[in-house]
Amino acid sequence: MLGDHIVGLSLVDHHIHGAIIGPLDRAGFEQLITESDRPVPPWMSTFDSQLGLAIRRYCAPLLGLAPHASADDYLAARSQLGEEAVNRLFLGAAGVSDYLVDTGYLGDAVTDVDELAKLSGSRAHEVVRLESELEYVASQESTVTAVPDALVRRLEERTAGAVGLKSIVAYRHGFDFDPAEPSAADVLTALDRWYASGASRVTDPVLLRWLLWTGARRGLPLQLHAGFGDPDLQLRKADPLLLTEWLRLVEPVGAQVVLLHCYPFHREAGYLAHAFPHVSFDLGLTTMYVGARAAAVLAEGLELAPFAKVLYSSDAWGPAELHYLGATVWRRAVTSVLSGFVEQGDWSADDAARVATLWGRENAVRLYNLDQR
Amino acid sequence: MLGDHIVGLSLVDHHIHGAIIGPLDRAGFEQLITESDRPVPPWMSTFDSQLGLAIRRYCAPLLGLAPHASADDYLAARSQLGEEAVNRLFLGAAGVSDYLVDTGYLGDAVTDVDELAKLSGSRAHEVVRLESELEYVASQESTVTAVPDALVRRLEERTAGAVGLKSIVAYRHGFDFDPAEPSAADVLTALDRWYASGASRVTDPVLLRWLLWTGARRGLPLQLHAGFGDPDLQLRKADPLLLTEWLRLVEPVGAQVVLLHCYPFHREAGYLAHAFPHVSFDLGLTTMYVGARAAAVLAEGLELAPFAKVLYSSDAWGPAELHYLGATVWRRAVTSVLSGFVEQGDWSADDAARVATLWGRENAVRLYNLDQR
Amino acid sequence: MLGDHIVGLSLVDHHIHGAIIGPLDRAGFEQLITESDRPVPPWMSTFDSQLGLAIRRYCAPLLGLAPHASADDYLAARSQLGEEAVNRLFLGAAGVSDYLVDTGYLGDAVTDVDELAKLSGSRAHEVVRLESELEYVASQESTVTAVPDALVRRLEERTAGAVGLKSIVAYRHGFDFDPAEPSAADVLTALDRWYASGASRVTDPVLLRWLLWTGARRGLPLQLHAGFGDPDLQLRKADPLLLTEWLRLVEPVGAQVVLLHCYPFHREAGYLAHAFPHVSFDLGLTTMYVGARAAAVLAEGLELAPFAKVLYSSDAWGPAELHYLGATVWRRAVTSVLSGFVEQGDWSADDAARVATLWGRENAVRLYNLDQR
Repeated sequence: MLGDHIVGLSLVDHHIHGAIIGPLDRAGFEQLITESDRPVPPWMSTFDSQLGLAIRRYCAPLLGLAPHASADDYLAARSQLGEEAVNRLFLGAAGVSDYLVDTGYLGDAVTDVDELAKLSGSRAHEVVRLESELEYVASQESTVTAVPDALVRRLEERTAGAVGLKSIVAYRHGFDFDPAEPSAADVLTALDRWYASGASRVTDPVLLRWLLWTGARRGLPLQLHAGFGDPDLQLRKADPLLLTEWLRLVEPVGAQVVLLHCYPFHREAGYLAHAFPHVSFDLGLTTMYVGARAAAVLAEGLELAPFAKVLYSSDAWGPAELHYLGATVWRRAVTSVLSGFVEQGDWSADDAARVATLWGRENAVRLYNLDQR
Repeated sequence: MLGDHIVGLSLVDHHIHGAIIGPLDRAGFEQLITESDRPVPPWMSTFDSQLGLAIRRYCAPLLGLAPHASADDYLAARSQLGEEAVNRLFLGAAGVSDYLVDTGYLGDAVTDVDELAKLSGSRAHEVVRLESELEYVASQESTVTAVPDALVRRLEERTAGAVGLKSIVAYRHGFDFDPAEPSAADVLTALDRWYASGASRVTDPVLLRWLLWTGARRGLPLQLHAGFGDPDLQLRKADPLLLTEWLRLVEPVGAQVVLLHCYPFHREAGYLAHAFPHVSFDLGLTTMYVGARAAAVLAEGLELAPFAKVLYSSDAWGPAELHYLGATVWRRAVTSVLSGFVEQGDWSADDAARVATLWGRENAVRLYNLDQR
Repeated sequence: MLGDHIVGLSLVDHHIHGAIIGPLDRAGFEQLITESDRPVPPWMSTFDSQLGLAIRRYCAPLLGLAPHASADDYLAARSQLGEEAVNRLFLGAAGVSDYLVDTGYLGDAVTDVDELAKLSGSRAHEVVRLESELEYVASQESTVTAVPDALVRRLEERTAGAVGLKSIVAYRHGFDFDPAEPSAADVLTALDRWYASGASRVTDPVLLRWLLWTGARRGLPLQLHAGFGDPDLQLRKADPLLLTEWLRLVEPVGAQVVLLHCYPFHREAGYLAHAFPHVSFDLGLTTMYVGARAAAVLAEGLELAPFAKVLYSSDAWGPAELHYLGATVWRRAVTSVLSGFVEQGDWSADDAARVATLWGRENAVRLYNLDQR
């Protein structure tokens, strides 16, 4: 009953990337079902992981195979169907009404916003990545002093049709930055340093926090990668508790801040969502990666968090299986967690269904104002 | 059977505050069932949380309503009954023989020790908050040099009938302080600084650790807030592991240290209780706030902790529902955890009942010497 | 069925110490079933812990007693049987084909590698502790300049028949060390400092990281204590995430790094094993210490970790009960976790059995090259 409700729930996937274009051999596929960017050692397979088993369990039947089909059989069937049909199949089956697409990560290798909408038959909205925009502006402006105004203009342009902003300060520096808004003079000095270095990537903490403050002032929800990600990360510095003072300072500006992924600091994220009215979070990426353990992890996220502050996302990038699995594993896990609360006598079935709808859909509709689009 | 034993267990609530005096409308009530001190945003209700659902589930029947009654129905019934009757009802139903009352937080808005005893029909003992006492002394003494002796005299007076001391250094500074006992000269310098600042709250880390050392020398158990609390906290600095070196230094003094709340660092607290003979802890506040998840969280606390080192508290402040729910959620969760151990064949039923009694009652009786009162 | 497979699985215990020699009275036994080195307070017993209940539950039947026999009855039966028979009994019943023995901790009080092999009827291989070897070399060499070459020679000698190396930098300093390889000059300066201090223990972070780098270059798997241990530890500094930058720097050297214990940072260890091809980990020590909670903890370790990167160990030292319990609690817990995944429909039974075999045996056989011995 609760299960039926959740299976039928039209989700908002509020943080996702495009689906891969072009065929994948086994090595290529294995490299895309891990967050590690290192070559997979010859003595192991990334299918031997919670995510790998989830693919064999939940994606195989959509290709006409038995659940738990072998990786080779799975990839053969996938190959036979062809990449575009695979994308259509899995995107169509995800049961997602709206995708909020972060276009800032290796955008050329995957479908763009419009293609994703076409393939999935869903609505797709853009989320603009702050660091990419600053890097673009810097590539266009030859003088440092022109950058601040140019950035504002660029963000105005880029966010005209967008629903949110995203920052990857967790990757580029970590959350242990000075929380105060930098002065215009500090920004110019940092821009000078950056231009002089010749680097294309922005990693200077002054510029990164300037982006955060600038983003916060734009009036769109601001997504921040937190916790689990690839080995480029110092995971300890992606603990969202490190943002506490910045969250306090930025609170009067009126921005809604959304913490993404968060594992293994999802209880910490739940505390921040409890303490601060402008903080929400999801367990995207994590949910599908932990597979059979998703219920246990999601349940931890639902300890302190007000139910109006939890969101669903897949954070899928690449194989469309991930866009589908994010939703499928989430549905199974949320059903398990909430029906557990009902069975142990703590929640009513009505409340369980209502919270599932908030989590999977309504909180995102409200936060990103999707009803007005 | 185990459930009956635990339902019948007369608890010691070793860390609690008073019950609210005067009526509460919906907005007022909602503001007291969250640790956030921010206004509740118009698009959410704090009833949509684990604690909110626990109130509707476990408190509604005591008001003659069905379990899971709506928030509006609940508050209407509560209002009709009247505040004093509500207090009597929930305090009486908690099944607590002894309340250990921290009087240092907004004491004027809630019942004092004697009123709590009268309303509940239980014994109530005082726990003295160190920071409040120093602030009182400073408000009385015009010269800095008089403060150290005056503090000792004040603590002697205030602890004459008290059972313990409490510190909120986690709020005022965090646990990342120099663990050594400050010299008399350092204390005077810090007092000078404080007096010169004109501040009434003590936040200087030298003074806060001086209070900790002074408290530790008084021979009463010393409670320290750790982990989860309101947004005034830097949660990362409330990780009790930061106390490790201070715990080592203070060990020879003979003080028993009790870590309160601890979430999400309750496994860390369990480690400290395992490693150090003078450390105990509870999961107060947390237990009721995580509601349907209480069993999962309490079980984590029982991984490394010796069974002689775990305590029960509610940390309730305000609505008497919280005084009742702390006990009720704890009883349900402990029953679930320990009967799970029995069912999986790991524990005997006798051991389970014995550990429940240690946890809910006997450890606190021993630690606070309650049999001698 | 899965349970039968796991009960019959011949384990590799890839990190263990010797079994105690000589009789133990109740006080002596209690002191060895806790990681605390402090005297057990008179008001508690270390039997009142998850480990203590596991001993009474799972070891008592091997002594002919009923499960959950009292501690006194248990120790009386143990005493009557005699220490050597006790050792033979529990080591024989563990179902371990290969023990990898760390001989660096209080080696004189316990059986050495050969005795352990004889008592257990299993193969036993040595793991060489880096810090002990440097301390030995320093005790032999009167001049500082002779130490570096002497260390290399000593390690060549000592590892000729060994299967791995071990570091306890987590105890001696913590993981918050400069990750770069120290220069020869820095090493000599640090050796000078150490010799001048007269200390026998090596605690200088330059020397400790020199040992790590030297160990990593030897081509044997390098074990690092991480997380949970005795009160000599600063647990926060044993968070393996602090090793991230060192892991990146040492990756090209080709060493396999194995994180031991890890609790409560086992999810963090799982992330490192996911991100870095040269990182594996176990939940040794933890598994038996958390007893009835082992399934919950092991399951957390299996969230992000590739299944080729998890290992079994007991980390037993002292009473042979621990050598046995490590295996017994692990078997029960892994059966519970993996059969849970099968029952909830996420894993196939075949995959579950295969992962259990990887975890309990095959990963260690591959990593330590045990088939070639």
